[in-house]
Amino acid sequence: MGPRDEFALIDWIRRRAASHPRLTLGIGDDTAALSFPRPAECLITVDMLMEGVHFDLSKATPQQVGRKALAVNLSDIAAMAGQPLAAVVSVALPRHGGWELGQGLHQGLQELSEQFAVAIAGGDTNTWDGPLVISVTVLGEATSPGPVRRSGAKPGDWIMATGSFGGSIAGKHLDFTPRVQEALALQQTVALHAMLDVSDGLAADLGHILEESHVGAFLDAGSIPLSDAARAAADGRTPLEHALSDGEDFELLFTVSPEDGQRLLATPPFATPLAHIGEIVSGRDCLIKQADGTLTALAPAGWKHGFEASS
Amino acid sequence: MGPRDEFALIDWIRRRAASHPRLTLGIGDDTAALSFPRPAECLITVDMLMEGVHFDLSKATPQQVGRKALAVNLSDIAAMAGQPLAAVVSVALPRHGGWELGQGLHQGLQELSEQFAVAIAGGDTNTWDGPLVISVTVLGEATSPGPVRRSGAKPGDWIMATGSFGGSIAGKHLDFTPRVQEALALQQTVALHAMLDVSDGLAADLGHILEESHVGAFLDAGSIPLSDAARAAADGRTPLEHALSDGEDFELLFTVSPEDGQRLLATPPFATPLAHIGEIVSGRDCLIKQADGTLTALAPAGWKHGFEASS
Repeated sequence: MGPRDEFALIDWIRRRAASHPRLTLGIGDDTAALSFPRPAECLITVDMLMEGVHFDLSKATPQQVGRKALAVNLSDIAAMAGQPLAAVVSVALPRHGGWELGQGLHQGLQELSEQFAVAIAGGDTNTWDGPLVISVTVLGEATSPGPVRRSGAKPGDWIMATGSFGGSIAGKHLDFTPRVQEALALQQTVALHAMLDVSDGLAADLGHILEESHVGAFLDAGSIPLSDAARAAADGRTPLEHALSDGEDFELLFTVSPEDGQRLLATPPFATPLAHIGEIVSGRDCLIKQADGTLTALAPAGWKHGFEASS
Repeated sequence: MGPRDEFALIDWIRRRAASHPRLTLGIGDDTAALSFPRPAECLITVDMLMEGVHFDLSKATPQQVGRKALAVNLSDIAAMAGQPLAAVVSVALPRHGGWELGQGLHQGLQELSEQFAVAIAGGDTNTWDGPLVISVTVLGEATSPGPVRRSGAKPGDWIMATGSFGGSIAGKHLDFTPRVQEALALQQTVALHAMLDVSDGLAADLGHILEESHVGAFLDAGSIPLSDAARAAADGRTPLEHALSDGEDFELLFTVSPEDGQRLLATPPFATPLAHIGEIVSGRDCLIKQADGTLTALAPAGWKHGFEASS
């Protein structure tokens, strides 16, 4: 047994590394190598999670944090209807307790990586006297007919979503299942015009589709699936407000032709709930029909941080 | 002008994004996309730099930090004789001064990315009340006849290195040129048996080659190129000790057959200095012949951090 240092942790991780048919070179050299045996479009996404911002180690286990760091990236690959292939992980571990924390993070990462057949290809392990920071980069492969962008929504499209919304902070933000399989099934079943995963909040992320597609939207409040957590939250905001503005739902939000939308509702390609929540319209307005029939403008509220000026 | 928040910084970066022939989807969607128009091996590497550990913002500009965060990864791609293609960047910016810091980092990243024709494909921008953390992942493509691993050194090989060693902390760790072009030229000229870039220190990194290749080495102290900084350091350690144990030289260390080594010295394929510093031997010993002719065992000293136990 060597001392418990970064090299020993890397050795511990390396001994646990699973083989993967596409990984030609894994942990232990200057880079990893992933084979693309046919011409391909490689999808790339990265997310960094910081202690005290994206998780709290008094409320989440290291395993849950490791899992989440990978899951948020798988959700981004899903948003493009891609097939995830490999992940690399960089961490800044607090010097105090770093060994146990590093092992826990890796266990959470590895469990989810096995579930989605994603190789843990490499990483960079560091220690310092600061809080835990973990950054995961995931590589995937686009599926036919290509990556589904945010910019393809057309007037007349149905706006649809998987799952339910709001109150993720009560637990779902740690244990959600990235909608990789659902996205692949949608890509095989219908022509996806625009898609993303809801991380900033339903209203804010719909706003991203509208902005990139240069269109507007009309939402029906009564059709938006409210999560149990959104209904249970007793903080003065309505369940609908939670569903529209809470972040980290990690559900798919997408647009398709009305014909494709009807087909999806008639014959859903998976068990995860699917909802038709509104329509894309021309113009740039985003309106929502409330339960009482009134129409109001939807503000793209969501999770947003500002900087302080440096001087 | 929107408020100076993360979204505004991402917009600022997106407007400065250069096109790249292989980048089919850049900043602004859920993932980036990089085309591999022919079957390929995609190289992947990640490095995280933390304020107070890898740089000090009172001694380095944000531009220098951004440059270094990309350069250390290009050095890893060089170590495999790969062609770098694209980078994604995740940052944790201090809330105070984050706007200016984010812009400076990006300027440093972009300048080096243009020099090496690397696309800045995407990223994740966060703010917090902690120190600056930047993690860069670089994707590259292996060149024929394939990635050069650490494990291919053979008894009888010459051990060779680019540039000079020691004292990087005096400045080179911030402004070094990653040896991408040199590695590609070597790959085209000779059969590279084993290669890496020296980041932990010459002795420690030679130790990595020996360990992965199951061989030993015999070094000639008098042939090891000492940097001016190693000669200038007046801290009681000899220039040779600096050259052997300081980290962050980011030079190539490689092994080739004696015939290829002689050819490289006779007709160097680039202007960067090349040195023949020793031989690979069978067995597992690593010996160094000192200037006075004595033989001593080389300890793989280098940069290594330990954890404190959590309880």
